[in-house]
Amino acid sequence: MSEIAERLLAGEQRALSRLITLLERGDPAAAEAMKAVDGHTGRAYTVGITGPPGSGKSTIVDQLTQLVRETGSSVGIIAVDPTSPFSGGALLGDRIRMQRHYLDSGVFIRSVATRGQTGGLPRIVKSMVRALDAAGTDLILVETVGVGQTELGIISVADTVVVALNPESGDAIQTLKAGVMEIADVYVVNKADREGADQMAMAITGMLHLASVSPEWSPPVLLTAALTGQGIQDLWMKIQDHREFLTTSGGLEDRRGKQRKREFLEAVEEVLAQRLRNKVANDPDLNATLEKVAAKETDPYSAALEYLESSLFSSDWLNAQ
Amino acid sequence: MSEIAERLLAGEQRALSRLITLLERGDPAAAEAMKAVDGHTGRAYTVGITGPPGSGKSTIVDQLTQLVRETGSSVGIIAVDPTSPFSGGALLGDRIRMQRHYLDSGVFIRSVATRGQTGGLPRIVKSMVRALDAAGTDLILVETVGVGQTELGIISVADTVVVALNPESGDAIQTLKAGVMEIADVYVVNKADREGADQMAMAITGMLHLASVSPEWSPPVLLTAALTGQGIQDLWMKIQDHREFLTTSGGLEDRRGKQRKREFLEAVEEVLAQRLRNKVANDPDLNATLEKVAAKETDPYSAALEYLESSLFSSDWLNAQ
Repeated sequence: MSEIAERLLAGEQRALSRLITLLERGDPAAAEAMKAVDGHTGRAYTVGITGPPGSGKSTIVDQLTQLVRETGSSVGIIAVDPTSPFSGGALLGDRIRMQRHYLDSGVFIRSVATRGQTGGLPRIVKSMVRALDAAGTDLILVETVGVGQTELGIISVADTVVVALNPESGDAIQTLKAGVMEIADVYVVNKADREGADQMAMAITGMLHLASVSPEWSPPVLLTAALTGQGIQDLWMKIQDHREFLTTSGGLEDRRGKQRKREFLEAVEEVLAQRLRNKVANDPDLNATLEKVAAKETDPYSAALEYLESSLFSSDWLNAQ
Repeated sequence: MSEIAERLLAGEQRALSRLITLLERGDPAAAEAMKAVDGHTGRAYTVGITGPPGSGKSTIVDQLTQLVRETGSSVGIIAVDPTSPFSGGALLGDRIRMQRHYLDSGVFIRSVATRGQTGGLPRIVKSMVRALDAAGTDLILVETVGVGQTELGIISVADTVVVALNPESGDAIQTLKAGVMEIADVYVVNKADREGADQMAMAITGMLHLASVSPEWSPPVLLTAALTGQGIQDLWMKIQDHREFLTTSGGLEDRRGKQRKREFLEAVEEVLAQRLRNKVANDPDLNATLEKVAAKETDPYSAALEYLESSLFSSDWLNAQ
């Protein structure tokens, strides 16, 4: 086993930081260490917190961290940041709010920029969760910022998914469209002091009755005011209830197994795409094709099909539809 | 040439709708028609309008459409909707606002949902732009909603990129981080009546002086109040100035050639990933591997590398690093 893997398993925070840096660089040593520590994971519990911008996710993470630290458990925080050009100044504020935990050695905080990544949650987040787990972290909080695929991707890494909503964002039904109801284990209507919070909570509860996604687990709908800490204790209890439910029903093992399978398939695609890019970058015929496409002698899609069917790509499976 | 391609080139709106439906379904007839009409494109001008939620992009599109229709030119509108679970009720309002154009046969409107797509602008948007172009549309407006990759992807389809900003979103410098300055040809600070609009415009202008991205084209920074139409005439003039600049400098041809090259490379990756998924779905050995990954006998990434190096994937280029 590599030195870094050994130090990680011994719980050394510096080894954890180092491994994450290696992961970010795509260093082969990181893959080697991840392979070595993989069998030592599974003890940590991972909670994903997602929701629209302005729903107070970071404040919820901050308050949950505070609460859990009082029990002596260690906490790892991964903030997934799509680094949108338009994210505004909120992130800076979040960082400032979180700074009370920076000096606490029982809290490990790391942001991941996902700009330039394809949809879903990037593989590095999954590796970071596994690294934190291997290093002996008790609770891992993964916060996904922004909108779209990255949020829904939280299901690929979290044991419990908390969806935070903002009563000021308007129509609860619109807020809940497109996939969120399939992934939410706990709903939080944050900013409970604002107008519309109760109505939003009731609307969600009503929709849950109609949808009845899971017969065994009814996602609770909580009201919080994360800035003051109101409702956070209750949220933590519901997260523990959900953990208990998953553990006793066998759902936890099932969920984690599915996550690993999906990660494998995504990795196959990722590595293949990367090799394709290398291949393409070194292909002398490619330039001629590109110039033909640019000059409208052929359309891009047809040209792509022809290129893939050319002799260079003649393996049977590549040409199989 | 297929019947649909012929009818499209004759400018039949129903053929256009039909082709787009075929594109959405991934019907091979669509690819065939796109191939046939490709050489007949290039006459339309494409303006991309992007920016954060709430910056009034749809209102700007609506007002530009109104203005351009008064000159008799036809307009195609493509609203790219990442179908985020959290997009709120804004889209519905946008649709209602646009309805005055629905009865105008000189305006073609279509939304594209991009949920489930990987980063950047999905290929279907590029095909739709090309189909509108082939059908004789004069001006094509592509609006991208949401945050992240989809916005920056607008550069892969637009001749002129308009970035709309909202003075209420706060710090202009934060708003402009990460890639937007490289793609913006025209800046619009919308809601010019709100506090901070002038300051934001000045801050952007100041940053542009420092950055000086293109020595030949200085992106203008405009103040608009799209709801009342204020500043829209000026925006339209600046778009035409930019078109003139691109045309006389040779930049238009260069930009479009680059877009086509990029589209080709993306199509190669897309088709290959799709074939890989088919391959994987029909591989009898795969289940055993998946179960090993789920049971933590091997970690997902190492397993992916091993799978790709197995005899099934023995083509030289696949194994080349």
